[in-house]
Amino acid sequence: MIVPINTEVDPTLVIGPQALADLLGRWPTADGALYRLLAARIGRLADTGELPAGVRLPPERALAAALSVSRNTVALAYQVLRDEGMAASRQGSGTRLVPHRTTPAAVHRANGFFTGLLSAAPDFDLSVAAVDCAPQVAAMLHSPGDVLSKSERMLLTQGTGYLPYGLPDLRAAIAWMLTTCHGIPTTADQVLVTTGSMQALDLLLRCEVAPGHPVVTEDPTYPGFIDALHRSGARPVGVPPGDMARLADAVAVHRPALAYLIPTYQNPTGLVLPAAERHEVVALARRHPDITFIDDMTVAELPLTAKELMDEPPPLAALAPRLPNVVTVGSLSKTYWGGLRTGWVRAPEGIIARLAAAKAAADLGSPAFTQGLLAALIRSSHEQIIAERAGWARQRYAAMSAALSAHLPDWTWSAPAGGLTVWARRPGDADSGGFTQAALRRGVAVVPGRLLSVSAERSPWLRLAFTLPPDDLATAVKVLASVLFTG
Amino acid sequence: MIVPINTEVDPTLVIGPQALADLLGRWPTADGALYRLLAARIGRLADTGELPAGVRLPPERALAAALSVSRNTVALAYQVLRDEGMAASRQGSGTRLVPHRTTPAAVHRANGFFTGLLSAAPDFDLSVAAVDCAPQVAAMLHSPGDVLSKSERMLLTQGTGYLPYGLPDLRAAIAWMLTTCHGIPTTADQVLVTTGSMQALDLLLRCEVAPGHPVVTEDPTYPGFIDALHRSGARPVGVPPGDMARLADAVAVHRPALAYLIPTYQNPTGLVLPAAERHEVVALARRHPDITFIDDMTVAELPLTAKELMDEPPPLAALAPRLPNVVTVGSLSKTYWGGLRTGWVRAPEGIIARLAAAKAAADLGSPAFTQGLLAALIRSSHEQIIAERAGWARQRYAAMSAALSAHLPDWTWSAPAGGLTVWARRPGDADSGGFTQAALRRGVAVVPGRLLSVSAERSPWLRLAFTLPPDDLATAVKVLASVLFTG
Repeated sequence: MIVPINTEVDPTLVIGPQALADLLGRWPTADGALYRLLAARIGRLADTGELPAGVRLPPERALAAALSVSRNTVALAYQVLRDEGMAASRQGSGTRLVPHRTTPAAVHRANGFFTGLLSAAPDFDLSVAAVDCAPQVAAMLHSPGDVLSKSERMLLTQGTGYLPYGLPDLRAAIAWMLTTCHGIPTTADQVLVTTGSMQALDLLLRCEVAPGHPVVTEDPTYPGFIDALHRSGARPVGVPPGDMARLADAVAVHRPALAYLIPTYQNPTGLVLPAAERHEVVALARRHPDITFIDDMTVAELPLTAKELMDEPPPLAALAPRLPNVVTVGSLSKTYWGGLRTGWVRAPEGIIARLAAAKAAADLGSPAFTQGLLAALIRSSHEQIIAERAGWARQRYAAMSAALSAHLPDWTWSAPAGGLTVWARRPGDADSGGFTQAALRRGVAVVPGRLLSVSAERSPWLRLAFTLPPDDLATAVKVLASVLFTG
Repeated sequence: MIVPINTEVDPTLVIGPQALADLLGRWPTADGALYRLLAARIGRLADTGELPAGVRLPPERALAAALSVSRNTVALAYQVLRDEGMAASRQGSGTRLVPHRTTPAAVHRANGFFTGLLSAAPDFDLSVAAVDCAPQVAAMLHSPGDVLSKSERMLLTQGTGYLPYGLPDLRAAIAWMLTTCHGIPTTADQVLVTTGSMQALDLLLRCEVAPGHPVVTEDPTYPGFIDALHRSGARPVGVPPGDMARLADAVAVHRPALAYLIPTYQNPTGLVLPAAERHEVVALARRHPDITFIDDMTVAELPLTAKELMDEPPPLAALAPRLPNVVTVGSLSKTYWGGLRTGWVRAPEGIIARLAAAKAAADLGSPAFTQGLLAALIRSSHEQIIAERAGWARQRYAAMSAALSAHLPDWTWSAPAGGLTVWARRPGDADSGGFTQAALRRGVAVVPGRLLSVSAERSPWLRLAFTLPPDDLATAVKVLASVLFTG
């Protein structure tokens, strides 16, 4: 099948106001008149191919409502686009982008979530759950000699540096950590080192799912997974987190290639799947050996209750360490630091070999040197780093929950059992997209619930990360409370 | 379209002896009896899905010839597979792998080239063109304080660490290097930092090419590109390096989404595309604005003639810096060190934005800290590192060419103008696959020409990297000359 490039303009090509608002992302955070910022951002989306040639833009009034700006702002932005030859309006057929250079592969694949990471940062960013760099990690990066001797470091720079599986020492350290801290008996051969858990998920989608395959995921879920899912061409099937009947149904009906779960501190809801339900998932995996079940442990080491008070159920792989279709994914990003970009997959050796071959073709392996330092740091300090980070997260959650109770008493939210996000609902049934736009113009970024859903249906929910310093969290919530938006 | 998982066994599913030999890669380098190694490797390929369930293995005699082993070795290996329940033989229908757990997405996507990187290293590896770590790079990694002040380093560990575009400082340093060293006027906004040029190519294929699209490439070419191409589902169209008439024809006839060229020190041939032909490529790009032309500069800084004696033609982007469909790709892997995994794309801002969004969904960005060190090192030492590496490569090429002339006088090869590989041809027309297998068992790995071709047709050519120390190169070539193989 050959897809022609720059096909003739399709007159039925339209984009809805909410979809455009998602693509626009953080357009109003830069300096300048709002209508100019809006025009520039639409122009950029045309340039990147995210808005296809000839697409009809939403009516001014509808886009103004979705962005919570005046209709005049949108009218002026469309006028700028017409003046620059990027758009054309005709009576009765609205405003269309004029054809421009693009490629079909790029069109409509991006999820609005990442547009945040790719744009200028707002004053208060509650949209990305990013922790600061743990002091042990900063010390390791600044002074490698404190972690490894000179001869150990020399060994690291002596090879070719091509490590598609990851450095053997780091694979062994991750296997040790899984075995001793999480009760998942693991050998180094069952571990692949990845550039964060995002790459782990992307490689799994690329290896285990062909275009058109159904993939079952909790809904809402981690928006990075949703973006990778859309790009893979898979067919998403959403089930509510923790709903075992719906999960079993979806598996039986759709026979997915893969089922993606975050059993511990589900992102964004913070729920924990109880032990009995975990046994049900494992039983389901046993009955469906052709379906790969993923347990994403990226935030599983971040309980919001002191460990001694908790009855934390075991990871799926701890219940069935030899089940060939249970795959575990994790990361150091939410405990050590995201800038390390170090994640992992724990799977049977056959799947690891397949993923390593895909990783070789994707990037030939992650950078070599830091892997050696990290292997040493995990063995010496993992439990300490985890314990300190959990305390850090508890302190920030306390600030966030106090501010929400004080300033947004009419919002609904359940206390998360762990993780780094609060899943909150504004009063009423309106989609939260308009509110997030209005908040953004006051300098606070939050994620509208729609971007965490594979259905992309309207949602009154919002995801708030509580990773900023406590004082900033209090200020940001006050700003959210001051946003006059009742849509 | 839904592709069912574990379809019924297809009785027509067969794999040829050469294709299986490619997948087997370096099976005989481990310890143990040959037949056991062969059986274990075939079992692993079944496990990873690279050999699909129910595939018919080649007849014993044909596989023995392709691997240059005795027929008895293959017969015993097949017997082991049958004993272990992994294969079944029936009179008249040969030996088949019994169905096992796999997924269609993984089947038959891998190119044999990377199996080398993924296997145990042989005594002398001439298959991977990997340089050692430059002393300036080792010093930077071991003592970051020598490159950046404490306050500069603190800044690097203060952010979230999520940098899908790359660290702004490194983007600027790469832009500076392209502008001053290569005559390509470039701003930081036109640069994306990638995990090596392999990721640059993979992201370009993922963003600019949809499955089924034709992609034009030189043939032979960099085998990593061929693997990524096959995985992307694109339809490869090969043209001989430097053949402008064939290139223009392929572009006009196939209207590819993308054309991949290595104009400077083509991998593997070492050819330089002359200036006049480069102008022709640029004219072609002007006539076909819908086709993305890639100039891969990964080895472009490695001339084998002293710079003052050279008349090096400019990169494509230097001839047309503002042409929106000319994209430049490069890497520090072949000059600084492959273990850095630092590459880049230089393209118009629209393409860079599209690639950054894809990189966010692929890995959220490369590791943050080392990017800051590298930015400083590029500005302070790039020309020195490049000059020293070019001298390093010349010394090793001299050893390689002397050894080839002395020990393999009947092989044909042209002196490469630059790069890190010799493209050599054995006498006769036999495919070089059998010879590479025989050489591997003597401890020397080389790449058979077939793996560098999109047609995968039989080829008497071989690629020999000359990146080992000079004495090792001399020994390895002596071993190659001692291989008694006349297939």
